[in-house]
Amino acid sequence: MKSAVSSSLFSLKYLLNPNPRPHFISLKSVFLPKLSLSSITNNAALKLLSPPSTSGLRSIYSSSMASSFKPEQARVPSALPLPAPPLTKFKMGLCQLSVTTDKTRNISHTKNAIEEAVSKGAKLVLLPEMWNTPYTKGSFKAFAEDIDAGGDASPSTAMLSEVSKRLNITIIGGSIPEKSRGRLYNTCCVFGSDGELKAKHRKIHLFDIDIPGKITYMESRTFTAGETPTVVDTDVGRIGVGICYDIRFQELAMMYAARGAHLLCYPGAFNMTTGPLHWELLQRARATDNQLYVATCSSARDYGSCYVAWGHSTLVGPFGEIIATSEHEETIIIAEIDYSFLKQRRSNLPLNKQLRGDLYQLVDIQRLNY
Amino acid sequence: MKSAVSSSLFSLKYLLNPNPRPHFISLKSVFLPKLSLSSITNNAALKLLSPPSTSGLRSIYSSSMASSFKPEQARVPSALPLPAPPLTKFKMGLCQLSVTTDKTRNISHTKNAIEEAVSKGAKLVLLPEMWNTPYTKGSFKAFAEDIDAGGDASPSTAMLSEVSKRLNITIIGGSIPEKSRGRLYNTCCVFGSDGELKAKHRKIHLFDIDIPGKITYMESRTFTAGETPTVVDTDVGRIGVGICYDIRFQELAMMYAARGAHLLCYPGAFNMTTGPLHWELLQRARATDNQLYVATCSSARDYGSCYVAWGHSTLVGPFGEIIATSEHEETIIIAEIDYSFLKQRRSNLPLNKQLRGDLYQLVDIQRLNY
Repeated sequence: MKSAVSSSLFSLKYLLNPNPRPHFISLKSVFLPKLSLSSITNNAALKLLSPPSTSGLRSIYSSSMASSFKPEQARVPSALPLPAPPLTKFKMGLCQLSVTTDKTRNISHTKNAIEEAVSKGAKLVLLPEMWNTPYTKGSFKAFAEDIDAGGDASPSTAMLSEVSKRLNITIIGGSIPEKSRGRLYNTCCVFGSDGELKAKHRKIHLFDIDIPGKITYMESRTFTAGETPTVVDTDVGRIGVGICYDIRFQELAMMYAARGAHLLCYPGAFNMTTGPLHWELLQRARATDNQLYVATCSSARDYGSCYVAWGHSTLVGPFGEIIATSEHEETIIIAEIDYSFLKQRRSNLPLNKQLRGDLYQLVDIQRLNY
Repeated sequence: MKSAVSSSLFSLKYLLNPNPRPHFISLKSVFLPKLSLSSITNNAALKLLSPPSTSGLRSIYSSSMASSFKPEQARVPSALPLPAPPLTKFKMGLCQLSVTTDKTRNISHTKNAIEEAVSKGAKLVLLPEMWNTPYTKGSFKAFAEDIDAGGDASPSTAMLSEVSKRLNITIIGGSIPEKSRGRLYNTCCVFGSDGELKAKHRKIHLFDIDIPGKITYMESRTFTAGETPTVVDTDVGRIGVGICYDIRFQELAMMYAARGAHLLCYPGAFNMTTGPLHWELLQRARATDNQLYVATCSSARDYGSCYVAWGHSTLVGPFGEIIATSEHEETIIIAEIDYSFLKQRRSNLPLNKQLRGDLYQLVDIQRLNY
């Protein structure tokens, strides 16, 4: 599976920035997150440090002055156009599953749920956050798998690989605890219909929260945060992945939209305090603001667990409309996605053309650095 | 009133960036929206174009590496700390008013409403978008006022100035059509308790929308867009101002939060299509994502008008909770704001400390250029 990820990085590079523009090379040096001093001597940095010619500057600024408001500059690099999706309409399955302390049961239970979703027409299946393990610190360590090693070292992803290939579907594999080089990550694996691991998203924003008397939780004491936003091209469109708390950070969804995502998938497990407050609100806001589909999938509620999940897995359309949702019990939601609505909604409300790139710019640092 | 605005620009400069940091000077040249070629010869640009010393670079990058995730770099310039508000608790009045074709009546009606709100304890009053004119293209031109000239040329703002001083309150004056140098703007005037015009916000994002069979509206055919985000320090806290469609642009609210706003005020007049779809959602999203108060004020619904407003003026708290709202009839909402919740909510959910400035950065271009 390792090689699948590596090879997909090449196409990812193109996806991230198919037309790098000269003036971003200079920005790169300014924003580079891990700038080493030695890099100052490379060509890109020298370009920044040498006085540009007048004609060079003119072209930098005139090339993107289609409107005095410069909407195309509101994202840096400029937003990619929405790609034509491989298919327009399809069914998606959201598996809101119960989780037990028996890992083997969790894996077979999840496999059965995926098969059921597919039998009902799903071409894309989304699983919950931490579907193979109870939501406790001790379990995370005990249930963690070495995904990169694969095979017996990762029975959970081996199952996802087998079932995605056999059933010819795409799976956004919720998340499982991943162990890698002595660290633990909260990781979502995306499997293509060929059974290959197409992407691995390690939760970027860890869930550290303190609402006294309600919920206190410090995920960063157990897990290491991921370092990379994840957008992946699949048989069912370009998908941006976040895990649970990642949904709180509007910047991530904005970057995914600018990378041309059709759909954002957030496996999650909001709790009984933040669930009723914000779970639906955040999904609808990300979909409405970015004019794309948003799907979430939670585990089912278990009052016997020390972390009680809110449930309410949901599919939201690009106008913030709830297409399908659930209560908190175990269930499989089958709902239709129709990407033709993306163009229609963006034509109704042409937000991307109305952005004020002359007043604000969102910089996607990793895309800039490609 | 002109001089009041000019003098407030000095303090605004400080507000926007009290501690300019050296490395932002170089960014300035890169992002400057209206870079003239002659500016390349000034000192700031020369600083950019001269090779920096190694020690200089080291200090630029080490000064802001408190965390490897660089949350303080997620806003450029860095977010200002939340200022201590002049008072913690106060009552706010939202005047959801009917509007007629009689401007003199609209002005006296609005004056009466402000007085009523103050009699019920309001220290801050928010008015609707276009409270002095029917919402029609013809009326906008006929009812427009020259705010900068003041006096008889702007009876609407003269009233706001008089009443704010007499009653010792702050008024976020909804909006009125403003004529200035042959152009029309959709403009909100903020009056302090001394009766002075503290800020003038011209709607930045104009409402151009086309939902066939539902609503088609092209505000940009009548109005010119404003050029400046507006944050203003008042007796009742630091307030960011947007008008109606401005609320759709999450970047504006994010910039206001980074400039230290306690409260965002959006006079608005959503319609019968987008109102039920998005009005409440957008308010709650801006409040929740940015952890501040959001107040909106619409005109009352008039089925006889050719533009039927949704109504539903609302005050939302920093957890996205609806503190007070209304239906669509004429009404004055009195609701309490308690700024102590801002610190509490940001302590519960420390989003600002969890931002990934190593992955994304929102650039506030005008603040950068001060």
